[in-house]
Amino acid sequence: RPRREVLFFPSQVTCTEALLQAPGRPPGPSGCPCSLPHCESSLSRLLRALLAARASLELCLFAFSSPQLGRAVQLLHQRGVRVRVITDCDYMALNGSQIGLLRKAGIQVRHDQDLGYMHHKFAIVDKKVLITGSLNWTTQAIQNNRENVLIMEDAAYVKLFLEEFERIWEEFNPT
Amino acid sequence: RPRREVLFFPSQVTCTEALLQAPGRPPGPSGCPCSLPHCESSLSRLLRALLAARASLELCLFAFSSPQLGRAVQLLHQRGVRVRVITDCDYMALNGSQIGLLRKAGIQVRHDQDLGYMHHKFAIVDKKVLITGSLNWTTQAIQNNRENVLIMEDAAYVKLFLEEFERIWEEFNPT
Ligand SMILES: [Zn+2]
Ligand SMILES: [Zn+2]
Repeated sequence: RPRREVLFFPSQVTCTEALLQAPGRPPGPSGCPCSLPHCESSLSRLLRALLAARASLELCLFAFSSPQLGRAVQLLHQRGVRVRVITDCDYMALNGSQIGLLRKAGIQVRHDQDLGYMHHKFAIVDKKVLITGSLNWTTQAIQNNRENVLIMEDAAYVKLFLEEFERIWEEFNPT
Repeated sequence: RPRREVLFFPSQVTCTEALLQAPGRPPGPSGCPCSLPHCESSLSRLLRALLAARASLELCLFAFSSPQLGRAVQLLHQRGVRVRVITDCDYMALNGSQIGLLRKAGIQVRHDQDLGYMHHKFAIVDKKVLITGSLNWTTQAIQNNRENVLIMEDAAYVKLFLEEFERIWEEFNPT
Protein backbone atom coordinates (compact mmCIF):
# COMPACT_ATOMS: atom_id res chain seq x y z
CA ARG A 1 0.00 0.00 0.00
CA PRO A 2 1.68 3.24 -1.08
CA ARG A 3 2.52 5.59 1.74
CA ARG A 4 0.23 8.60 2.14
CA GLU A 5 0.79 10.50 5.34
CA VAL A 6 0.61 14.04 6.70
CA LEU A 7 2.59 15.53 9.57
CA PHE A 8 1.20 18.59 11.30
CA PHE A 9 3.33 21.04 13.22
CA PRO A 10 4.20 22.51 15.70
CA SER A 11 5.92 19.32 16.70
CA GLN A 12 6.24 18.22 20.28
CA VAL A 13 9.87 18.76 21.30
CA THR A 14 11.30 15.27 21.66
CA CYS A 15 14.76 13.71 21.86
CA THR A 16 15.96 12.61 18.43
CA GLU A 17 19.43 11.36 19.45
CA ALA A 18 18.63 7.68 18.96
CA LEU A 19 17.59 8.39 15.37
CA LEU A 20 20.66 10.49 14.62
CA GLN A 21 23.39 8.28 16.02
CA ALA A 22 25.74 7.29 13.27
CA PRO A 23 25.46 3.69 12.14
CA GLY A 24 28.46 1.65 13.24
CA ARG A 25 28.60 3.45 16.54
CA PRO A 26 27.60 1.06 19.33
CA PRO A 27 24.05 1.77 20.38
CA GLY A 28 23.83 3.85 23.52
CA PRO A 29 22.27 2.69 26.73
CA SER A 30 18.64 1.73 26.23
CA GLY A 31 17.57 4.78 28.22
CA CYS A 32 18.88 8.15 27.03
CA PRO A 33 19.52 10.27 30.12
CA CYS A 34 18.28 13.57 28.68
CA SER A 35 15.17 15.18 30.05
CA LEU A 36 13.19 15.40 26.80
CA PRO A 37 10.40 12.94 26.01
CA HIS A 38 11.58 10.00 23.88
CA CYS A 39 8.34 9.35 22.02
CA GLU A 40 7.55 9.93 18.34
CA SER A 41 6.79 13.46 17.14
CA SER A 42 6.22 15.17 13.81
CA LEU A 43 9.94 16.01 13.71
CA SER A 44 11.00 12.42 14.47
CA ARG A 45 8.67 11.14 11.75
CA LEU A 46 10.12 13.61 9.26
CA LEU A 47 13.65 12.52 10.24
CA ARG A 48 12.70 8.85 9.79
CA ALA A 49 11.28 9.52 6.33
CA LEU A 50 14.56 11.20 5.31
CA LEU A 51 16.85 8.68 6.98
CA ALA A 52 15.18 5.91 4.98
CA ALA A 53 17.13 7.13 1.92
CA ARG A 54 19.53 4.53 0.49
CA ALA A 55 20.54 5.97 -2.90
CA SER A 56 19.53 9.59 -3.41
CA LEU A 57 18.08 12.63 -1.71
CA GLU A 58 17.03 15.81 -3.51
CA LEU A 59 16.32 18.82 -1.29
CA CYS A 60 14.70 22.00 -2.57
CA LEU A 61 14.37 24.26 0.45
CA PHE A 62 13.80 27.95 0.95
CA ALA A 63 15.23 27.86 4.49
CA PHE A 64 17.35 25.22 6.19
CA SER A 65 18.63 25.91 9.71
CA SER A 66 17.34 23.00 11.83
CA PRO A 67 20.40 21.31 13.43
CA GLN A 68 18.64 17.93 13.62
CA LEU A 69 17.63 17.97 9.97
CA GLY A 70 21.15 19.14 9.09
CA ARG A 71 22.65 16.21 10.99
CA ALA A 72 20.29 13.79 9.24
CA VAL A 73 21.36 15.06 5.82
CA GLN A 74 25.05 14.83 6.77
CA LEU A 75 24.52 11.26 8.00
CA LEU A 76 22.99 10.29 4.68
CA HIS A 77 25.90 11.88 2.82
CA GLN A 78 28.35 9.89 5.00
CA ARG A 79 26.44 6.71 4.20
CA GLY A 80 27.00 7.30 0.49
CA VAL A 81 23.56 8.63 -0.40
CA ARG A 82 23.82 11.12 -3.28
CA VAL A 83 22.55 14.35 -1.75
CA ARG A 84 21.81 17.46 -3.82
CA VAL A 85 20.53 20.69 -2.29
CA ILE A 86 18.84 23.68 -3.92
CA THR A 87 18.22 26.68 -1.69
CA ASP A 88 17.44 30.38 -1.72
CA CYS A 89 20.41 32.74 -1.67
CA ASP A 90 18.75 35.25 0.65
CA TYR A 91 18.10 32.80 3.42
CA MET A 92 21.38 30.94 2.94
CA ALA A 93 23.37 33.90 4.23
CA LEU A 94 21.46 34.09 7.51
CA ASN A 95 22.87 33.14 10.85
CA GLY A 96 22.20 29.54 11.75
CA SER A 97 21.80 28.31 8.20
CA GLN A 98 22.93 24.72 7.77
CA ILE A 99 23.99 25.32 4.16
CA GLY A 100 27.59 26.28 4.95
CA LEU A 101 28.04 23.13 7.05
CA LEU A 102 26.58 20.93 4.32
CA ARG A 103 28.95 22.43 1.77
CA LYS A 104 31.90 21.97 4.10
CA ALA A 105 30.91 18.32 4.41
CA GLY A 106 31.18 18.00 0.62
CA ILE A 107 27.48 18.10 -0.26
CA GLN A 108 26.53 19.74 -3.57
CA VAL A 109 24.51 22.92 -3.10
CA ARG A 110 23.12 25.32 -5.69
CA HIS A 111 21.18 28.52 -5.15
CA ASP A 112 19.33 31.16 -7.10
CA GLN A 113 20.63 34.60 -7.99
CA ASP A 114 17.36 36.28 -8.84
CA LEU A 115 14.83 38.45 -7.15
CA GLY A 116 12.02 35.97 -6.68
CA TYR A 117 12.31 33.49 -3.86
CA MET A 118 13.12 29.84 -4.33
CA HIS A 119 10.23 29.12 -2.00
CA HIS A 120 9.76 25.36 -2.45
CA LYS A 121 10.06 23.12 0.61
CA PHE A 122 10.31 19.63 -0.78
CA ALA A 123 12.50 16.54 -0.60
CA ILE A 124 12.59 13.43 -2.77
CA VAL A 125 13.84 10.20 -1.19
CA ASP A 126 15.29 7.51 -3.48
CA LYS A 127 13.23 8.94 -6.37
CA LYS A 128 10.27 7.21 -4.76
CA VAL A 129 8.87 9.30 -1.90
CA LEU A 130 7.89 12.97 -2.10
CA ILE A 131 8.01 15.06 1.09
CA THR A 132 6.45 18.50 0.58
CA GLY A 133 4.44 21.11 2.43
CA SER A 134 4.51 24.50 4.09
CA LEU A 135 7.36 23.76 6.53
CA ASN A 136 10.64 25.57 6.26
CA TRP A 137 13.37 23.49 7.87
CA THR A 138 13.95 25.78 10.85
CA THR A 139 13.58 25.12 14.56
CA GLN A 140 11.27 28.13 14.82
CA ALA A 141 8.89 26.62 12.29
CA ILE A 142 9.14 23.08 13.67
CA GLN A 143 8.47 24.09 17.26
CA ASN A 144 6.19 27.13 16.96
CA ASN A 145 4.36 27.32 13.65
CA ARG A 146 1.25 25.64 12.31
CA GLU A 147 2.58 23.74 9.33
CA ASN A 148 1.93 20.65 7.24
CA VAL A 149 4.20 18.15 5.52
CA LEU A 150 2.89 15.49 3.17
CA ILE A 151 4.82 12.24 2.76
CA MET A 152 3.66 10.50 -0.38
CA GLU A 153 4.84 7.45 -2.23
CA ASP A 154 3.31 8.55 -5.51
CA ALA A 155 5.11 7.93 -8.79
CA ALA A 156 3.26 10.65 -10.71
CA TYR A 157 3.99 13.38 -8.16
CA VAL A 158 7.60 12.23 -7.68
CA LYS A 159 8.15 12.46 -11.42
CA LEU A 160 6.77 16.01 -11.64
CA PHE A 161 8.74 17.28 -8.64
CA LEU A 162 11.92 15.56 -9.83
CA GLU A 163 11.54 17.30 -13.19
CA GLU A 164 11.09 20.62 -11.38
CA PHE A 165 14.21 19.85 -9.32
CA GLU A 166 16.29 19.04 -12.42
CA ARG A 167 15.06 22.18 -14.21
CA ILE A 168 16.12 24.39 -11.29
CA TRP A 169 19.35 22.42 -10.73
CA GLU A 170 20.41 23.11 -14.32
CA GLU A 171 19.29 26.71 -14.21
CA PHE A 172 21.29 27.34 -11.01
CA ASN A 173 24.41 25.73 -12.46
CA PRO A 174 27.10 28.32 -11.68
CA THR A 175 29.48 27.21 -14.45
CA ARG B 1 -10.36 9.10 -11.88
CA PRO B 2 -9.56 11.23 -8.83
CA ARG B 3 -7.83 14.47 -9.58
CA ARG B 4 -4.10 14.61 -8.84
CA GLU B 5 -2.38 17.67 -10.22
CA VAL B 6 0.47 20.03 -9.41
CA LEU B 7 0.86 23.66 -10.39
CA PHE B 8 4.32 25.15 -10.45
CA PHE B 9 5.00 28.85 -10.11
CA PRO B 10 6.01 31.51 -11.06
CA SER B 11 2.89 31.68 -13.18
CA GLN B 12 2.81 33.30 -16.57
CA VAL B 13 0.93 36.61 -16.19
CA THR B 14 -2.35 36.06 -18.02
CA CYS B 15 -5.75 37.75 -18.18
CA THR B 16 -8.18 36.16 -15.72
CA GLU B 17 -11.15 38.47 -16.36
CA ALA B 18 -13.23 35.85 -18.17
CA LEU B 19 -12.94 33.54 -15.16
CA LEU B 20 -13.82 36.23 -12.66
CA GLN B 21 -16.86 37.76 -14.29
CA ALA B 22 -19.85 37.38 -12.05
CA PRO B 23 -22.37 34.79 -13.15
CA GLY B 24 -25.59 36.39 -14.39
CA ARG B 25 -23.64 39.14 -16.10
CA PRO B 26 -23.93 38.74 -19.86
CA PRO B 27 -20.73 37.24 -21.25
CA GLY B 28 -18.38 39.84 -22.67
CA PRO B 29 -17.26 39.98 -26.28
CA SER B 30 -15.45 36.83 -27.29
CA GLY B 31 -12.17 38.72 -27.46
CA CYS B 32 -11.11 40.62 -24.34
CA PRO B 33 -9.35 43.82 -25.50
CA CYS B 34 -6.60 43.81 -22.84
CA SER B 35 -3.01 43.25 -23.83
CA LEU B 36 -2.30 40.23 -21.58
CA PRO B 37 -2.24 36.70 -23.00
CA HIS B 38 -5.58 34.88 -22.61
CA CYS B 39 -4.23 31.34 -22.29
CA GLU B 40 -4.20 29.09 -19.23
CA SER B 41 -1.58 29.64 -16.54
CA SER B 42 -0.85 28.27 -13.07
CA LEU B 43 -2.88 31.15 -11.61
CA SER B 44 -5.85 30.54 -13.92
CA ARG B 45 -5.80 26.84 -13.02
CA LEU B 46 -5.75 27.67 -9.32
CA LEU B 47 -8.66 30.08 -9.82
CA ARG B 48 -10.62 27.39 -11.70
CA ALA B 49 -10.06 24.86 -8.91
CA LEU B 50 -11.41 27.34 -6.37
CA LEU B 51 -14.30 28.59 -8.51
CA ALA B 52 -15.53 25.01 -8.84
CA ALA B 53 -16.82 25.26 -5.24
CA ARG B 54 -20.59 24.84 -4.90
CA ALA B 55 -21.16 24.38 -1.17
CA SER B 56 -18.12 25.18 0.97
CA LEU B 57 -14.63 26.60 0.91
CA GLU B 58 -12.20 26.47 3.82
CA LEU B 59 -9.10 28.67 3.51
CA CYS B 60 -6.15 28.42 5.88
CA LEU B 61 -3.62 30.95 4.61
CA PHE B 62 -0.60 32.64 6.09
CA ALA B 63 -0.76 35.50 3.57
CA PHE B 64 -3.59 36.59 1.29
CA SER B 65 -3.14 39.70 -0.82
CA SER B 66 -3.69 38.58 -4.43
CA PRO B 67 -6.55 40.69 -5.87
CA GLN B 68 -7.58 37.95 -8.31
CA LEU B 69 -7.78 35.29 -5.63
CA GLY B 70 -9.61 37.77 -3.40
CA ARG B 71 -12.20 38.40 -6.14
CA ALA B 72 -12.64 34.66 -6.65
CA VAL B 73 -13.36 34.14 -2.96
CA GLN B 74 -15.83 37.05 -2.92
CA LEU B 75 -17.58 35.62 -5.99
CA LEU B 76 -18.01 32.29 -4.25
CA HIS B 77 -19.41 34.02 -1.17
CA GLN B 78 -21.89 35.91 -3.39
CA ARG B 79 -22.95 32.61 -4.96
CA GLY B 80 -23.86 31.26 -1.55
CA VAL B 81 -20.81 29.09 -0.96
CA ARG B 82 -20.01 28.91 2.77
CA VAL B 83 -16.54 30.46 2.99
CA ARG B 84 -14.45 30.35 6.16
CA VAL B 85 -10.99 31.89 6.38
CA ILE B 86 -8.19 31.31 8.90
CA THR B 87 -5.18 33.58 8.61
CA ASP B 88 -2.12 34.86 10.45
CA CYS B 89 -2.55 38.05 12.45
CA ASP B 90 0.88 39.41 11.54
CA TYR B 91 0.36 39.29 7.82
CA MET B 92 -3.29 40.36 8.02
CA ALA B 93 -2.33 43.86 9.10
CA LEU B 94 -0.05 44.45 6.11
CA ASN B 95 -0.82 46.77 3.27
CA GLY B 96 -2.62 45.05 0.42
CA SER B 97 -4.05 42.22 2.49
CA GLN B 98 -7.38 41.00 1.16
CA ILE B 99 -8.60 40.02 4.64
CA GLY B 100 -10.25 43.37 5.41
CA LEU B 101 -12.16 43.29 2.13
CA LEU B 102 -13.33 39.73 2.75
CA ARG B 103 -14.59 40.68 6.21
CA LYS B 104 -16.36 43.74 4.81
CA ALA B 105 -18.08 41.44 2.33
CA GLY B 106 -19.41 39.40 5.25
CA ILE B 107 -17.03 36.46 5.09
CA GLN B 108 -16.10 34.80 8.38
CA VAL B 109 -12.41 35.24 9.24
CA ARG B 110 -10.49 34.05 12.29
CA HIS B 111 -6.82 34.59 13.10
CA ASP B 112 -4.24 33.57 15.65
CA GLN B 113 -3.01 35.61 18.58
CA ASP B 114 0.16 33.76 19.37
CA LEU B 115 3.82 34.03 18.56
CA GLY B 116 4.18 31.16 16.13
CA TYR B 117 2.99 31.71 12.59
CA MET B 118 -0.18 30.21 11.18
CA HIS B 119 1.92 29.18 8.20
CA HIS B 120 -0.42 26.77 6.38
CA LYS B 121 -1.39 27.55 2.79
CA PHE B 122 -4.29 25.26 2.05
CA ALA B 123 -7.85 25.33 0.76
CA ILE B 124 -10.57 22.68 0.82
CA VAL B 125 -13.23 22.82 -1.90
CA ASP B 126 -16.63 21.24 -1.19
CA LYS B 127 -14.97 18.96 1.39
CA LYS B 128 -13.70 16.98 -1.58
CA VAL B 129 -10.59 18.60 -3.06
CA LEU B 130 -7.47 19.64 -1.14
CA ILE B 131 -5.34 22.48 -2.52
CA THR B 132 -2.04 22.82 -0.63
CA GLY B 133 1.58 23.73 -1.17
CA SER B 134 4.25 26.36 -0.63
CA LEU B 135 2.40 29.26 -2.28
CA ASN B 136 1.29 32.24 -0.25
CA TRP B 137 -1.60 33.95 -1.99
CA THR B 138 0.30 37.10 -2.97
CA THR B 139 1.02 38.55 -6.40
CA GLN B 140 4.73 38.60 -5.52
CA ALA B 141 4.72 34.86 -4.93
CA ILE B 142 2.48 34.05 -7.90
CA GLN B 143 4.52 36.04 -10.39
CA ASN B 144 8.08 35.82 -9.05
CA ASN B 145 8.66 32.85 -6.77
CA ARG B 146 9.32 29.20 -7.39
CA GLU B 147 6.38 27.53 -5.72
CA ASN B 148 4.19 24.45 -5.89
CA VAL B 149 0.50 23.83 -5.31
CA LEU B 150 -0.99 20.34 -5.22
CA ILE B 151 -4.63 19.85 -6.20
CA MET B 152 -5.81 16.49 -4.92
CA GLU B 153 -9.14 14.79 -4.82
CA ASP B 154 -8.17 12.49 -1.99
CA ALA B 155 -10.65 11.62 0.75
CA ALA B 156 -8.00 10.64 3.32
CA TYR B 157 -6.02 13.87 2.94
CA VAL B 158 -9.17 16.02 2.83
CA LYS B 159 -10.32 14.47 6.10
CA LEU B 160 -7.00 15.13 7.86
CA PHE B 161 -6.76 18.74 6.65
CA LEU B 162 -10.42 19.40 7.46
CA GLU B 163 -9.82 18.16 11.00
CA GLU B 164 -6.80 20.47 11.25
CA PHE B 165 -8.95 23.34 9.97
CA GLU B 166 -11.72 22.67 12.51
CA ARG B 167 -9.19 22.38 15.36
CA ILE B 168 -7.67 25.77 14.49
CA TRP B 169 -11.10 27.31 13.77
CA GLU B 170 -12.27 26.40 17.28
CA GLU B 171 -9.01 27.47 18.89
CA PHE B 172 -9.16 30.88 17.19
CA ASN B 173 -12.77 31.44 18.23
CA PRO B 174 -12.68 34.95 19.69
CA THR B 175 -15.76 34.50 21.90
ZN1 LIG C 1 17.26 11.79 25.02
ZN1 LIG D 1 -8.01 40.24 -21.14
